[in-house]
Amino acid sequence: MPARRAGAGFMAPARQENVRAHNLGLILQHIAADAAPVSRIELARATGLARPTVSRLVDDLLTGGLITEVGPDRTRSTGRPPIGLTLSRTGPAGLGLDMRTGSLTACVVDFAGTVRHLEFAPRTHPVTSPEQTIDDLAAIAKAAIRTAAAQGLTVAGVTLAVPGPVQDRSRVRFAPAIGWRDFDAGSRLRAALGSDAVTVSVDNEAGLAALAEWHASEKELRNFVCLFGDFELGAGIVLDGELLRGARGWSGELGHVTVDPDGVACACGAKGCLQGYAGLEAILAAVPDDEQKSGATSHQTPAVTIGVLADRSPEIRAALERAGTALGISLAAMINIIDIDTVLLDGSYSLLATWLTDEIQAQIGDRVLTARWAPVEVRAAPIGPDAAVIGAALTVIDDVRRDPSTWITRTRP
Amino acid sequence: MPARRAGAGFMAPARQENVRAHNLGLILQHIAADAAPVSRIELARATGLARPTVSRLVDDLLTGGLITEVGPDRTRSTGRPPIGLTLSRTGPAGLGLDMRTGSLTACVVDFAGTVRHLEFAPRTHPVTSPEQTIDDLAAIAKAAIRTAAAQGLTVAGVTLAVPGPVQDRSRVRFAPAIGWRDFDAGSRLRAALGSDAVTVSVDNEAGLAALAEWHASEKELRNFVCLFGDFELGAGIVLDGELLRGARGWSGELGHVTVDPDGVACACGAKGCLQGYAGLEAILAAVPDDEQKSGATSHQTPAVTIGVLADRSPEIRAALERAGTALGISLAAMINIIDIDTVLLDGSYSLLATWLTDEIQAQIGDRVLTARWAPVEVRAAPIGPDAAVIGAALTVIDDVRRDPSTWITRTRP
Repeated sequence: MPARRAGAGFMAPARQENVRAHNLGLILQHIAADAAPVSRIELARATGLARPTVSRLVDDLLTGGLITEVGPDRTRSTGRPPIGLTLSRTGPAGLGLDMRTGSLTACVVDFAGTVRHLEFAPRTHPVTSPEQTIDDLAAIAKAAIRTAAAQGLTVAGVTLAVPGPVQDRSRVRFAPAIGWRDFDAGSRLRAALGSDAVTVSVDNEAGLAALAEWHASEKELRNFVCLFGDFELGAGIVLDGELLRGARGWSGELGHVTVDPDGVACACGAKGCLQGYAGLEAILAAVPDDEQKSGATSHQTPAVTIGVLADRSPEIRAALERAGTALGISLAAMINIIDIDTVLLDGSYSLLATWLTDEIQAQIGDRVLTARWAPVEVRAAPIGPDAAVIGAALTVIDDVRRDPSTWITRTRP
Repeated sequence: MPARRAGAGFMAPARQENVRAHNLGLILQHIAADAAPVSRIELARATGLARPTVSRLVDDLLTGGLITEVGPDRTRSTGRPPIGLTLSRTGPAGLGLDMRTGSLTACVVDFAGTVRHLEFAPRTHPVTSPEQTIDDLAAIAKAAIRTAAAQGLTVAGVTLAVPGPVQDRSRVRFAPAIGWRDFDAGSRLRAALGSDAVTVSVDNEAGLAALAEWHASEKELRNFVCLFGDFELGAGIVLDGELLRGARGWSGELGHVTVDPDGVACACGAKGCLQGYAGLEAILAAVPDDEQKSGATSHQTPAVTIGVLADRSPEIRAALERAGTALGISLAAMINIIDIDTVLLDGSYSLLATWLTDEIQAQIGDRVLTARWAPVEVRAAPIGPDAAVIGAALTVIDDVRRDPSTWITRTRP
């Protein structure tokens, strides 16, 4: 038996300073759970905390700019109407960034989780160095920080969404869709933001998209997988309301699950990866280049091009059916392994759901052991292509919501 | 936005009674983490709690029979040697039950997690009704409860390990290996135990095996998958020290992951399931019945028979290679999806590791996107075929360790 490991993995003792931090989070959670303003009396009732304690905690949250007071609710018929409390629209904000086939995107969300700013910068050079891309992203980030400030918002952090596994929330290991291999995007972005530097992190786009869809569902959706991707296909997995990150944060590489052990070669070096059947590039490869060009304008995204072509090209429809079958087989493997009840087709796949859903559903019905007792729902995700950049912005807000005490200390004059 | 949901998913407020329950768990956790006795002074230092608080909590744990005092440690050279505290060897115990090809098994573990009793009852009738099997299990359970009592142990609960998905810790949905379909094993076992009834639950054997391996590793192994099975193949997944159960508790059905979309028909109704390539029945099918009989005695388990035949049958060796390839493809899918760094071959597969490991490792190396940066370790599990029944017994202890306060209240005279 090993010697005592110094506190590793132990629960924190319940002491006074922890109690205050815990209860600040608790009060904030109750205010966040309700779109309507909540009074101090309601908070005392809901949490079981004493009213003077609630008042002190509320004062701290007001000072930190995390919540605001709103006028008495005149719809109440009895008694003196209490002052309501709601999440601040001018407090801390989150900034998300992403890269797509045709653009770079920035998104600002306020502390209530509302999107306040969403901006697309066209990519002038289709192929640029990773460093140049980061510099371009830093430029739109700086502009977004200024725009946010003009609306009374303080950007508390920046998160960049990327299509590939990320180590230590900074180093991108392998993102062939954007030509990045072993590139420390976080350090470069931190340096490029310079004096505007706030906390910077880099994260996998599929996981971030899942977080955005989870927020959008009012957190009612507790277990689901979110299939996301432009050229690169990935999956964000939420289990019991938590993003499943895996041992090293590299979960969700659904695009590299084997569909056919002796199938087509993949950029990763393996054979028969899902990417080779259900990636947008694989679907588009079903039609000759000139037909693609005649059916699409140069500014269309690949998913829109596929959608346009599907109406008149039997080859594209056959490719979509193959993609649906391959997706269904891989998703069935995932559901057999981790038991999920909902599949959201997100990102580009949200635009192709019409052509994919039936085949995915059929494969899951056939191949998931428990599907006969508990059907799995497959549908287009509500947000779609903007989910990753919105999720990136929301992670910043989530960090502040989880630990309001640290934010309050940091912003104390 | 939905109306306020009454407390659903909210953190509990930090109040006095919660603080006591929390700190009881904390003290117990520190005592459990060390094989050597721990003094009250060391507990105060390690937890940051005041000494009188530690003394009160320790008294509660002593009264509940969860810990015991041991004589002063004479190896200490300075000062008055303090009294040490250690987990009780005569307090609450856990009882696990399982079913195998040739036997029914009962296992008792004490509060320190040590196996105190492990008994195999031969299955006289190879095919019995589910009800008869439960009655036979109840008989060995009652005997084990008496044996435990004679050693000063109080069985706090019973957990039955089964090879298939279980609903609400009671109803077995589909376990073709033992011929159970939609059978409420928990209710039957509760009734059969009658006045000896303690808390009864039913759980998937692969997940329970993973818990046992996790305990055996001194909880050093934080992320791993445990491949377990006699005739039916399943996987227990531990992520960040927690068993991954999935949306409805039906995770780990690795045996029904598709290896070949047009492959062999499976009992579940699908085609090309891993079970059809790597299940023990599929491996044994490679040799004619008479050769099996000539190479095996009637009391050998299937895994031992395969091991005996592998030395002289090229057909069995080829079948083992096919099994290893299929296992590697499915495990690679799992690792791409949830990112795990260790694969333990457990149950019958621990006995076949020599013939399976290399091929599994090769497939994972080829097919897991992130394997080039972080190799995945594949090896035989330390415990092997008894892991599920030991894990079943440990879950009972885990429940008491997690919430000592409830146990103390329940046993108060």
